Amino acid sequence: MRIGVLTGGSDCPGLNAALRAIVRKGVQSYGDSVVGFLDGWDGVLHDRALELDIPAVRGTLPRGGTILGSSRTDPLTAPDGPRRIAETLRNRGVDGLIVIGGINTLTAAAVLADRHGVPCVGVPKTIDNDIHGTDYTVGFNTAVTVATETIDRLHTTAESHKRVLVVEVMGRSSGWIAVHAGLAGGANCVLVPEFPFDLDRVCGHVESRFQATYSPIVVVSDSALPASGEVDLTGLSGIGEWLGREIERCTGHEARTTVLGHIQRGGTPTPYDRWLATRFGLHAVDAVHEGDWGAMVAVHGASVERVRLADAVSRGKRVDASLYADNEIFFG
Amino acid sequence: MRIGVLTGGSDCPGLNAALRAIVRKGVQSYGDSVVGFLDGWDGVLHDRALELDIPAVRGTLPRGGTILGSSRTDPLTAPDGPRRIAETLRNRGVDGLIVIGGINTLTAAAVLADRHGVPCVGVPKTIDNDIHGTDYTVGFNTAVTVATETIDRLHTTAESHKRVLVVEVMGRSSGWIAVHAGLAGGANCVLVPEFPFDLDRVCGHVESRFQATYSPIVVVSDSALPASGEVDLTGLSGIGEWLGREIERCTGHEARTTVLGHIQRGGTPTPYDRWLATRFGLHAVDAVHEGDWGAMVAVHGASVERVRLADAVSRGKRVDASLYADNEIFFG
Amino acid sequence: MRIGVLTGGSDCPGLNAALRAIVRKGVQSYGDSVVGFLDGWDGVLHDRALELDIPAVRGTLPRGGTILGSSRTDPLTAPDGPRRIAETLRNRGVDGLIVIGGINTLTAAAVLADRHGVPCVGVPKTIDNDIHGTDYTVGFNTAVTVATETIDRLHTTAESHKRVLVVEVMGRSSGWIAVHAGLAGGANCVLVPEFPFDLDRVCGHVESRFQATYSPIVVVSDSALPASGEVDLTGLSGIGEWLGREIERCTGHEARTTVLGHIQRGGTPTPYDRWLATRFGLHAVDAVHEGDWGAMVAVHGASVERVRLADAVSRGKRVDASLYADNEIFFG
Amino acid sequence: MRIGVLTGGSDCPGLNAALRAIVRKGVQSYGDSVVGFLDGWDGVLHDRALELDIPAVRGTLPRGGTILGSSRTDPLTAPDGPRRIAETLRNRGVDGLIVIGGINTLTAAAVLADRHGVPCVGVPKTIDNDIHGTDYTVGFNTAVTVATETIDRLHTTAESHKRVLVVEVMGRSSGWIAVHAGLAGGANCVLVPEFPFDLDRVCGHVESRFQATYSPIVVVSDSALPASGEVDLTGLSGIGEWLGREIERCTGHEARTTVLGHIQRGGTPTPYDRWLATRFGLHAVDAVHEGDWGAMVAVHGASVERVRLADAVSRGKRVDASLYADNEIFFG
Repeated sequence: MRIGVLTGGSDCPGLNAALRAIVRKGVQSYGDSVVGFLDGWDGVLHDRALELDIPAVRGTLPRGGTILGSSRTDPLTAPDGPRRIAETLRNRGVDGLIVIGGINTLTAAAVLADRHGVPCVGVPKTIDNDIHGTDYTVGFNTAVTVATETIDRLHTTAESHKRVLVVEVMGRSSGWIAVHAGLAGGANCVLVPEFPFDLDRVCGHVESRFQATYSPIVVVSDSALPASGEVDLTGLSGIGEWLGREIERCTGHEARTTVLGHIQRGGTPTPYDRWLATRFGLHAVDAVHEGDWGAMVAVHGASVERVRLADAVSRGKRVDASLYADNEIFFG
Repeated sequence: MRIGVLTGGSDCPGLNAALRAIVRKGVQSYGDSVVGFLDGWDGVLHDRALELDIPAVRGTLPRGGTILGSSRTDPLTAPDGPRRIAETLRNRGVDGLIVIGGINTLTAAAVLADRHGVPCVGVPKTIDNDIHGTDYTVGFNTAVTVATETIDRLHTTAESHKRVLVVEVMGRSSGWIAVHAGLAGGANCVLVPEFPFDLDRVCGHVESRFQATYSPIVVVSDSALPASGEVDLTGLSGIGEWLGREIERCTGHEARTTVLGHIQRGGTPTPYDRWLATRFGLHAVDAVHEGDWGAMVAVHGASVERVRLADAVSRGKRVDASLYADNEIFFG
Repeated sequence: MRIGVLTGGSDCPGLNAALRAIVRKGVQSYGDSVVGFLDGWDGVLHDRALELDIPAVRGTLPRGGTILGSSRTDPLTAPDGPRRIAETLRNRGVDGLIVIGGINTLTAAAVLADRHGVPCVGVPKTIDNDIHGTDYTVGFNTAVTVATETIDRLHTTAESHKRVLVVEVMGRSSGWIAVHAGLAGGANCVLVPEFPFDLDRVCGHVESRFQATYSPIVVVSDSALPASGEVDLTGLSGIGEWLGREIERCTGHEARTTVLGHIQRGGTPTPYDRWLATRFGLHAVDAVHEGDWGAMVAVHGASVERVRLADAVSRGKRVDASLYADNEIFFG
Repeated sequence: MRIGVLTGGSDCPGLNAALRAIVRKGVQSYGDSVVGFLDGWDGVLHDRALELDIPAVRGTLPRGGTILGSSRTDPLTAPDGPRRIAETLRNRGVDGLIVIGGINTLTAAAVLADRHGVPCVGVPKTIDNDIHGTDYTVGFNTAVTVATETIDRLHTTAESHKRVLVVEVMGRSSGWIAVHAGLAGGANCVLVPEFPFDLDRVCGHVESRFQATYSPIVVVSDSALPASGEVDLTGLSGIGEWLGREIERCTGHEARTTVLGHIQRGGTPTPYDRWLATRFGLHAVDAVHEGDWGAMVAVHGASVERVRLADAVSRGKRVDASLYADNEIFFG
């Protein structure tokens, strides 16, 4: 068979590991050839691609980013998009397309597969971990690890100076990185979009932490909001900076905000992400050979299985109350 | 309530994180007191213990090892063991005992709970990951991470010199560390006790790797064996050194063996292990309050649930053929 | 003898390693006792201190921050400061005071020693590395390592997306972290306060990098300025954000700024910083026993020697043209 | 000009960083061309080489090993070696040869430059740090960092179990890695070849450490020996294993030996090693353009300068008594 593959959306660690696994499995186990489209869906729309053989993916396992490039191009809103996608695949002789992406990229794959007959199989990747039907997505473990290491480093400043330390982590409409890194890093308060926060309670945790021991560390998702509603972020870098100022105002303690930003999605993937990406890649090739279009590979415990793309992207996966309650035990 | 806790067997990263979570949850959420027995079951047999309040566990989240100490003492073989265990707990006013351990420590807990009426709840920890009923055990993720980082480092030597590099990793009767670190580290051959190996095939992978690119890296569990049966390890550090010599003999290529040893179980736990240990600790306290004796906390996907200790320790969890087949795709 | 010690200024990795060495050397080699003043000069002014014996410093070698706390209190501007300092030391029976600090803290020590007869010996620490007479200061190597690891992570985003990545690192009036981390991290442009930058040339490097390969990474000290003079940072987090906007304006490429902030001064010290801090601590105790007041320990190559505090703090140490020229070879 | 370059001896982190710097400086600043000989002196003897332009070295800065390969071939003992070396360089039009290597590789360069008129400039690299005239060699800082991280990990096992932990580190006839990593890692005894050890004193340190706190960690160079003379290592992996057995015998405590081996020379270089290798590479190109044959680049403090190759290799650089005495303060 001839397999196509693309990586869409923001880059994250583990994409190259998945590409390498697809090529090794396709070429060695099945005798396939593999073509990689450049810059996500954009490369399929405009027929920009390169052949991926085994030497092309050698040495890429520990490397972050994606050798194919990426983009946020949406083939569903591009003029005549689905037809052009199908045409490129036909012209290239592609029998099945493995789409590695987050919720937007995979939503397009679901629609193309289910409504336009495009032979797609999905691989979920996003540091946000907000995709249903899989325990984890590729890139999430690395992002949590980077965020936790940062919180570890801030503890020593917290011990030595009297300052509230606010850490803003990523999480587009979900708080997965915040709750995991907050729990693992020993944060004294964790704020996520799923549970709008009460500023007075946050300040209460800050005060009680100061009383019990040393300076508090507050972790906040960049999409978290107070229960009182929208806030004006004009002239601010984001909710983290806003929160730092409000905490200063209501507690009188100096606050410093660190915005983690892009370093959460860069660098070498953790061993878990390499393992997950590799196994996802291997099993996606099996799905192509079974013609299981519209499927997404997913991890359940230690097993890689399949779910339907359409279900996985039907709504965002959110932090539930029970997990958040586990975080709250360590507040203050 | 009054909660007892012990850590048994070999130390591993995440034990302190579990202890901290037990104390925080017990004291803050339930108003419990917590007593920690020293050196595993030995501390219960001889009534050696210390009170664990919140200051006692402060700052321990990122620290490996266990502040309680550990031992391999088996209360079932100790003279009059079960009675002495029960007596210490009664004298100390302990309502429930949280037993953090590997397969031997938890087997004792299962027998004491089910046959002797000792109120035990189990928390699975071992770098070997060989306990049934849970996707992962505390310490495994860290061990895989250390092993993978070592393999990463060896790749550069493999690229610069013509030598077979053999890495011996831990795995008492199971190959979990080997298959995970081997896959994540890009090993060219992975040998585990579940699948006795054929030396000629190993040498074949070594040769084909040399032909395709640069020097091969072979990962071997310290309990792996050739299909031809037992080997004589007299005067050798272990199977890794034996394998290196045999590969030299049959391929003519120089081989160097690295034995990872204790560094796999030391140091700061990874964020995943801290998260897992913390959630296990929290949920074990709930189990105590529900009087769910003979239960073990377990992780299934992203959820912490409960299984029966007796089932979990009834037999070792082994690497299955499907996971090993995923490794084999990258051999040679 | 009785030795006093304090840590002043911002915290940085290695302070505890120095304290531990002072206690070990003083107590074991000389039979001294050691008293640690809390929160820098503030603790001497107000006579707040704790006894430091060997158990008090056990386990602190790898821990960032300072167990003594720190402050920016200046004893020279405090009312009747020098007299109160001398009085506390006399009342406590302190024969010599080891002052661990950056340029402000050590300037006070120099004045107190040279003009007021206070028996001070200095140990240079600051992530900024801006103290004369020593090759390096405690904390600098760790800060460079953290900054370089961040740049490493950003390279993968640079490879996958078309964006200018700006990294703002610390450096109060000197560019040491920027030039070291920029060189080690493979930055495509490095801007430091010693050499005011020309925005057009920066944009030229950005363009030529895009043409040659993938997205550029620009490292900027938080005290760097354009040659055209002061800039208006109202509503901006700092020069990094300003630079990102200007690059967007003049090149048309999207830019993202990461502000490293406090994580550069937190966490476990690198082995080099532990080694340096330990040797500085040991040799400072020797200086006390020789009554070498007004001396500062310093590293020259692999040797620890002594210089005069007054010389060391007489002016800031700056990046010279030859070192900056080495960076420039990799611009664009 | 036309510059040749080779990397000889064992691989170590930072070689690629040096090659990249040589190419960037030569091509960009001087308009040179660069040819890289394969596998050390072997590639010059047999005229095996590849052109090194800027794309050839792109992305290699953080990668360990050497893209040129290496060998221990000695051109002075090869038949008609010096003449063949000169001939290859002449045929290739090479004006100057940059030799990156340890003591053996650089000894050959010194002889070829001084006695045979071969235009050589040296760059010192070796994890052993045993080359005179330079504070540090490329690769040493990374080796110390890896060794220290390992000792850090073993501390948690030492805290949890009653066992003597012996760590064998590299150091061919010098103890630099041992004294640096031992000091930075908080070892309780450090044994180096420069100071033959007394087993009874070692066992005394072991006992006193057990009494004071928890289990001791003993760091030993693989070339260290007891003062009593040679030992029989038949059937043992090395001096570390021998020492573990002797400590068990004389103290009765269980001992475990970890042999670090090749991981000390693999993996990504630390920021310091990248900085050093880069600056060495840049300055070596200057030396070539000045025709300073027989020179070696060297670091003195923060400056890169030049010394004579012949002096640098005239004898090994050894750990001196003062540095070792600093280690001894922490024994026991």
